[in-house]
Amino acid sequence: MRVFITGIDGYLGWTLAQYLTARGHDVAGADTMMRREWVAEMNSQSAIPIYSREERIAAFKERYGKNLDFRVGDFTDYDFVTSFFEEFKPEAIVHLGQMPSAPYSMIDQKHTVFTQYNNVIGNLNILYAMKEIVPDAHLLKLGTMGEYGTPNVDIPEGFFEIEYRGRKDYLPFPRQAASFYHWSKVHDSNNTMYACKIWGLRATDVMQGVVFGTRIDEMGENPDPRLRTRLDFDQCFGTAINRFCCQAVIGHPLTLFGAGHQKRGFLPLRDSMQCLTIALENPPKEGEYRVFNQFEETYTIVELADMVQEVAGELGLDVDIYEYENPRHEAAEHYYNPDRKHLIDLGYKPTHDVKAEMKIMIQDLMQHRDRIMEKKDILVPDIRWDGKHHRSTVIGKRSERNVKA
Amino acid sequence: MRVFITGIDGYLGWTLAQYLTARGHDVAGADTMMRREWVAEMNSQSAIPIYSREERIAAFKERYGKNLDFRVGDFTDYDFVTSFFEEFKPEAIVHLGQMPSAPYSMIDQKHTVFTQYNNVIGNLNILYAMKEIVPDAHLLKLGTMGEYGTPNVDIPEGFFEIEYRGRKDYLPFPRQAASFYHWSKVHDSNNTMYACKIWGLRATDVMQGVVFGTRIDEMGENPDPRLRTRLDFDQCFGTAINRFCCQAVIGHPLTLFGAGHQKRGFLPLRDSMQCLTIALENPPKEGEYRVFNQFEETYTIVELADMVQEVAGELGLDVDIYEYENPRHEAAEHYYNPDRKHLIDLGYKPTHDVKAEMKIMIQDLMQHRDRIMEKKDILVPDIRWDGKHHRSTVIGKRSERNVKA
Repeated sequence: MRVFITGIDGYLGWTLAQYLTARGHDVAGADTMMRREWVAEMNSQSAIPIYSREERIAAFKERYGKNLDFRVGDFTDYDFVTSFFEEFKPEAIVHLGQMPSAPYSMIDQKHTVFTQYNNVIGNLNILYAMKEIVPDAHLLKLGTMGEYGTPNVDIPEGFFEIEYRGRKDYLPFPRQAASFYHWSKVHDSNNTMYACKIWGLRATDVMQGVVFGTRIDEMGENPDPRLRTRLDFDQCFGTAINRFCCQAVIGHPLTLFGAGHQKRGFLPLRDSMQCLTIALENPPKEGEYRVFNQFEETYTIVELADMVQEVAGELGLDVDIYEYENPRHEAAEHYYNPDRKHLIDLGYKPTHDVKAEMKIMIQDLMQHRDRIMEKKDILVPDIRWDGKHHRSTVIGKRSERNVKA
Repeated sequence: MRVFITGIDGYLGWTLAQYLTARGHDVAGADTMMRREWVAEMNSQSAIPIYSREERIAAFKERYGKNLDFRVGDFTDYDFVTSFFEEFKPEAIVHLGQMPSAPYSMIDQKHTVFTQYNNVIGNLNILYAMKEIVPDAHLLKLGTMGEYGTPNVDIPEGFFEIEYRGRKDYLPFPRQAASFYHWSKVHDSNNTMYACKIWGLRATDVMQGVVFGTRIDEMGENPDPRLRTRLDFDQCFGTAINRFCCQAVIGHPLTLFGAGHQKRGFLPLRDSMQCLTIALENPPKEGEYRVFNQFEETYTIVELADMVQEVAGELGLDVDIYEYENPRHEAAEHYYNPDRKHLIDLGYKPTHDVKAEMKIMIQDLMQHRDRIMEKKDILVPDIRWDGKHHRSTVIGKRSERNVKA
């Protein structure tokens, strides 16, 4: 299958290009290369060194025997999208090329506007280019579990049957996103659902949990460093488990926001690849817009911190867990019970062994301790949802009482 | 009250500036003046002649004795918004300054992108400028009943209590907008709801029905022509009743889309002014985001066409009603039962006499018969939701059978 990947230079995109190629698919893609700039703007860097586009393409050729058509370009530039589509004629488009950080979107007016502009217009351009050039292609669009927020009822996969005042309908499940980034993804979901309805496009909208992990088997046992994907640990682009593992490696306390009772869906990088590929290999029908909730399991943040602490301990790394003022606006305690049946029905086999994955990660990251150490001053967040800017202070240490509870 | 009006040159904006000033409020506002260009792009013009900004300001001074601070500027330009807010320090902002046409947003990629860019970024800038400069001000934001679509259940005002799998929550009512324009308004509603939640802003989000009418009493019995507001009849900016009245005046068949059984909420221009003012004079609490469904009554399009035909007949105008291929993607028959309790509770007295309003409109428009005649070739739509472009053909004449049914 000819698969076009937007955001092919990213954490997921660079990994997916390899995963799909190893499975025999023809991959091409593009990237603005802006993620590298955003992380630099955070005064940070990827813990795992990443190489230039040219070096990545060369290593790709060596390992997979294929010339990867990986171009630099912006999806907000409609001519760029259409001319690449005209040439490559994708059968599927995996749309990962967006600004993916909640805190980045909350910095100030400029960052909010950039986030929504970049994500909404890029996605609209892809929808229009599909309609014009490849109307039968499958759009596999990356959304986020964060689009739903934390309602006090179960979270279905995109739609639900409701009864209201004695009448019934099957409606989109209400979204309650928790940052302007998350709202940009809701806007994209809405626009995509609508394009399928009026133009007969087909799309899978993946509400993905938080991804963690440093590798997939396809990269090889001792991967060529040029094939490795990025791993961020700053407050904007470093997500929960990835950030905790980096903190553990340099002995920095793991940074809970509040008591860490927020519950979210998580999945290892290898499961994300597995799920995206299942969706690609089982495309929706013409005009179908389907939503997959994509995660291995739900965990509270503190459960994950405890696991990272335990695994790090086994590797001889002693690390504390601290509770910080929560810079975000989110519920400290809440109900959380999302479905994730669609992917299981299509054959998704969740990895389940989170600690084994954490062990691989920490071992990988220990080789780059100096790179994390160099940026240790940025491990505590100072971007706040209330619009003020100050670094969160420690409000407590995770207590033994909590550990036992 | 110091009220800032965005889109002050528009159909509602220019009227509201006068209505509020007549009630003793201090009004200022801005407009990109783009509506004039968009209508020209449709090869059309306002049926009622409109005057330059300078002429409007001069007439305003003559009638209301006040210098109106009406500037040209773009709300996607954040510096423009903040510097005007700094100077005027609004206590309320009525946000009408958006691209308001569904068909215009469906023309092609460029028009879709423009619509969502213009509407979403302008609204985000207003939210940020409020947070930074006037955090206690009240945002009265114009949404549209079209955000809800036509679900098979009652439509509450923004939120609803649901029970799902045995648990309860109070959630945003699902939106199913029916054009990229309508989706831009949903995106704005979502962003606005969120800004109230995290920053404590207060907002009223008005899901307004389709407005019709040529005047309000405040303009005077024989209004200075410079005080009159625009009245469009082209396929993009002319809404149902307004378009029908213009068609009746030149004897063009009234253009139903299909059989015209689509049901929508409608309200006269004077009721729109009444409702917006009620909302302004009864602001929400700090952090409150409330949604008002704003319409006088629901009607099917064919009921309205019948009324226009009848009223036109009384004025000696003989006009047919034709059914055209529907260029839109919308349900031909559907349930429709939206609430509109909030405004009634605050004192809204619906006009109810739709035919009397139509009579005033037709009489006003008869004086500008030549202006409509000049543009008669654009009365049948050619912008289609399926992305193709051709002029809708007549599929039938409204039959006696239907009239009696």
